[in-house]
Amino acid sequence: MKQAIRIIGIDPGLRRMGWGIVETLGNSLRFVAAGTVRSDDKAALATRLCQLHDGLVDILHQQTPHEAAIEITFVNKDAGATLKLGQARGIAMLVPARAGLVVAEYAPNAVKKAVIGVGHGDKKQIQMMVKVLMPKAVYDSDDAADALAIAICHAHHRQSAMSRLAVLAG
Amino acid sequence: MKQAIRIIGIDPGLRRMGWGIVETLGNSLRFVAAGTVRSDDKAALATRLCQLHDGLVDILHQQTPHEAAIEITFVNKDAGATLKLGQARGIAMLVPARAGLVVAEYAPNAVKKAVIGVGHGDKKQIQMMVKVLMPKAVYDSDDAADALAIAICHAHHRQSAMSRLAVLAG
Repeated sequence: MKQAIRIIGIDPGLRRMGWGIVETLGNSLRFVAAGTVRSDDKAALATRLCQLHDGLVDILHQQTPHEAAIEITFVNKDAGATLKLGQARGIAMLVPARAGLVVAEYAPNAVKKAVIGVGHGDKKQIQMMVKVLMPKAVYDSDDAADALAIAICHAHHRQSAMSRLAVLAG
Repeated sequence: MKQAIRIIGIDPGLRRMGWGIVETLGNSLRFVAAGTVRSDDKAALATRLCQLHDGLVDILHQQTPHEAAIEITFVNKDAGATLKLGQARGIAMLVPARAGLVVAEYAPNAVKKAVIGVGHGDKKQIQMMVKVLMPKAVYDSDDAADALAIAICHAHHRQSAMSRLAVLAG
């Protein structure tokens, strides 16, 4: 009997780290949970990184996903914002990797294609399609909805992604 | 009796993370150790971040510093490099913060001023002055020498830096 694979998608950010969990079994896809880990923007940077780390560690303990996925970041023009995002993204990749999960990376247009069906479209369209694909999905932020979209993308691509990662690791 | 304070300076990078430990007691400054944590540039990004994390955790266990310092990154023009650096810098701040250390941040010109005496100068000058200030210093990379310079900077500024951080946290 095939076993359902539980996937966590993570949408990193220093202020808000969205996460979304889906389960995939054959062609079926099921919403499990989604939410947002927040950091206190009045705290020192090192403290905020700890808050994101600890929040994400808790989610992994509670939800016990088997695989993780994150979007490949195409950096924007604001170098300061890019650095902040990079710091949060480092934590977002570290936590599942330390827990022994493979962390797959997807380009934004791959996420859009998996969810909307085409490689372009805005955030609102993505969020609408997440609701269409998983009517039971509930989330408390746009970042959590984006994280669900990343998890859905991995559910579609995981077999080929895992063999790519195996090549990388080999 | 006053107690010597042991400081770790960290110069973050995805490929090489320099670290340097100094001890300060009153006006005296003593070299303790320095080195470089490296990541395998053929491995997946998440794996590399784990390597940096685990290496830095080991150094903290071995060297038991009381305080940590890191340079404030002024981002360069290459956004991709900025993102990579950000990811490594996130790990560099997370590890000492999770160990309960204060992580002070210093602008590059503050580091230069503490080591060279003026707020400008190139990397070679910094490394030469680290050797003048601490003749016993040995290090295996330029990044480790830079990390020592950051630790020296914190040794000079730590009293005022700690009161600033106390204000931040208050």
